[in-house]
Amino acid sequence: MKEEYLINKIDNIGVTAAEGYKAAGISGGMKNCSKDLAVVCSEYDAVAAGVFTKNIVQAAPVHLCRSRLSNPVRVIVVNSGNANACTGEQGRQDAASMAEKTAACFGVKSEQVMVCSTGVIGVPLPMDKINAAIEKISGLPGKGEGDDLAAATAIMTTDTSAKRSACRVLMPNGREFKIGGMAKGSGMICPNMATMLAFLTTDVIIERTLLQEIFAEAVENSFNAITVDGDTSTNDTALLLANGASKIEITAGSAVLPCFKDALNRVCRDLALQIVGDGEGITKLLRLTISGAQDNAGARIMARSILNSPLVKTAFYGEDANWGRIIAALGYAGVDFDPEKVDILIGPYRVAKNGGAVPFSEEEMKLYLQEHDLDIQVNLNQGSVEVTAWGTDLSHEYININSNYRT
Amino acid sequence: MKEEYLINKIDNIGVTAAEGYKAAGISGGMKNCSKDLAVVCSEYDAVAAGVFTKNIVQAAPVHLCRSRLSNPVRVIVVNSGNANACTGEQGRQDAASMAEKTAACFGVKSEQVMVCSTGVIGVPLPMDKINAAIEKISGLPGKGEGDDLAAATAIMTTDTSAKRSACRVLMPNGREFKIGGMAKGSGMICPNMATMLAFLTTDVIIERTLLQEIFAEAVENSFNAITVDGDTSTNDTALLLANGASKIEITAGSAVLPCFKDALNRVCRDLALQIVGDGEGITKLLRLTISGAQDNAGARIMARSILNSPLVKTAFYGEDANWGRIIAALGYAGVDFDPEKVDILIGPYRVAKNGGAVPFSEEEMKLYLQEHDLDIQVNLNQGSVEVTAWGTDLSHEYININSNYRT
Repeated sequence: MKEEYLINKIDNIGVTAAEGYKAAGISGGMKNCSKDLAVVCSEYDAVAAGVFTKNIVQAAPVHLCRSRLSNPVRVIVVNSGNANACTGEQGRQDAASMAEKTAACFGVKSEQVMVCSTGVIGVPLPMDKINAAIEKISGLPGKGEGDDLAAATAIMTTDTSAKRSACRVLMPNGREFKIGGMAKGSGMICPNMATMLAFLTTDVIIERTLLQEIFAEAVENSFNAITVDGDTSTNDTALLLANGASKIEITAGSAVLPCFKDALNRVCRDLALQIVGDGEGITKLLRLTISGAQDNAGARIMARSILNSPLVKTAFYGEDANWGRIIAALGYAGVDFDPEKVDILIGPYRVAKNGGAVPFSEEEMKLYLQEHDLDIQVNLNQGSVEVTAWGTDLSHEYININSNYRT
Repeated sequence: MKEEYLINKIDNIGVTAAEGYKAAGISGGMKNCSKDLAVVCSEYDAVAAGVFTKNIVQAAPVHLCRSRLSNPVRVIVVNSGNANACTGEQGRQDAASMAEKTAACFGVKSEQVMVCSTGVIGVPLPMDKINAAIEKISGLPGKGEGDDLAAATAIMTTDTSAKRSACRVLMPNGREFKIGGMAKGSGMICPNMATMLAFLTTDVIIERTLLQEIFAEAVENSFNAITVDGDTSTNDTALLLANGASKIEITAGSAVLPCFKDALNRVCRDLALQIVGDGEGITKLLRLTISGAQDNAGARIMARSILNSPLVKTAFYGEDANWGRIIAALGYAGVDFDPEKVDILIGPYRVAKNGGAVPFSEEEMKLYLQEHDLDIQVNLNQGSVEVTAWGTDLSHEYININSNYRT
């Protein structure tokens, strides 16, 4: 009876869409005059799920968040402008003290606070400014469109627009729950100003291990399926809070579970596509489907290999249907396959069959490649697994942005 | 008594420096008017060693060469302009028939011929032109500087200059042997025109398995230690022939063995640096040393991760001492290490100690980063292994070259 559940997108709102959440974003002077401190607060103790960077070099706040996943969470505090990464013992103390200050100002326990930072690596946090900003923001959190947008703006670094998404799920019995979120950055696209951050909230009641499992899968198919340059930051963090305010319970056996997953996947994917669409210097959004694969992990590695290849990326920037570069990037991904079974389509046009060239109209292809959103389909023809991933081209503007950071 | 062996570089010669080798290079009309067919011939049966691309998608000539490594080799025939890759059964037949034609024209057996191709992927070889060119070249091979250069020129694709290197080893007893070679391309820097090719020759007597072992190590420390964009081609091939013309025998126990290794390493490294120095759009040559590592393989993976990072590459293009990007790329290489032990130097200046920032003079650094050849030292401080690798920056010119290939 999946038809009886209705999932509706809600516009112009994000992390405060679900019941019992408030947010705020202000300028604390860490990042010139723009907003640089955000909080997300839950009125009730929330169960937390988290997915973090796999980089061995992990910033202090990443360690803090991971160690607090099993705590009942009340506040997430985020600063931009400084990543608190590669800052050693001082960095760990600063992250802990940021949580303590927030707890004191918001009337919760320190262990109920999650801390995230994004920005320059290797410089200690300006704790005077951070503490003053936390005091200033403590009375501000609200539920309105403005507060929601202020929070999404305050976590930005080189992003050109705030990224939010939310949806409402109507159940057959007339009750409803919501999922919303905000995000910034993409991989480590930004010069020193690292990091993909995503904060999601929902008002369902759910057990922590189930939430973690569902969230990890949603992240894998969204935030981990996008790439701009393949660089993984020291601070990448995705957090999801569930505070139970809707009184609707999701369990492993409940009929609503598939719908909850579906709604969460939609919000994650929407945020991920907003991130990649705001990728530095992007002129093309590449949607790559690998089908006929033997397993998911291998297919994901292949997809990343293709979407991270500078030669593939520059080819699409140059509007060139260069499938030789695609099959070469597939070949060095490190996953076994039979090259002579591979079919490749660019848009609706087949360019390779059984690993070899097939004729196509250069004229029609030329027209297609002028579009902004491009589809690439690679069929390995040796299994039944299919994955989708998104990437960008590599443009002159990317070089401009990333070579001119400190100068 | 290593002092008694003298290794001297020989200028303006390459693959024909050693005794008993001739070469030629001509235009066969496959690649407009420029030279596109080369041969290297040995007067005597030569023992062969080879190292090939690890890409799963391997061109037909790669399969042919690998299967013939234990044969007594007489001729290497190379065409540029067409890679004979992703060409299926037709491609295998064409590679075999190229060897047969060469054998017939040069009066050797077909199985004594090695075949290499570089150029466009997915298009069948123009066998009429290839056959005519082989007939034409068969009377031409010589030992002079001009023939040597013609061969090195005929294997080029987007290279801007021919790459050759050779040296002479004088032994304490007054006798001598030589090693020489020619090379083209770097990784898969070239649009569709793929491939790193290297052909080396020596006149020592040596057993095949020993030669293979020594050559594999030399390739690892030279051709496999350079990267322009991390893309590995379908056709990468390095071949070394030893024809015994000098009558000097190298065995596992012989006193001259370390000197032979040293000389071979020098020629390989010289060719590799010529390749990376000719990298597409290069404005900086980066020399990266990873020291204090626990093992060689891990250190090599870390070096590649740093030198392939678009953020590291664009930072050096922008003359920015952005060590945060270096340590982040180290962190996602997938090799375990303790971030809080890492020291980083850029040129003579320490920029990070124990994984954290240390102050340095921005003015002095600015001056240093204006140089063309830049040194980066990463000390992991957790072992005694050291490796060196070379890479390039990522420039606007790279984007120009790689986005404008077919248009």
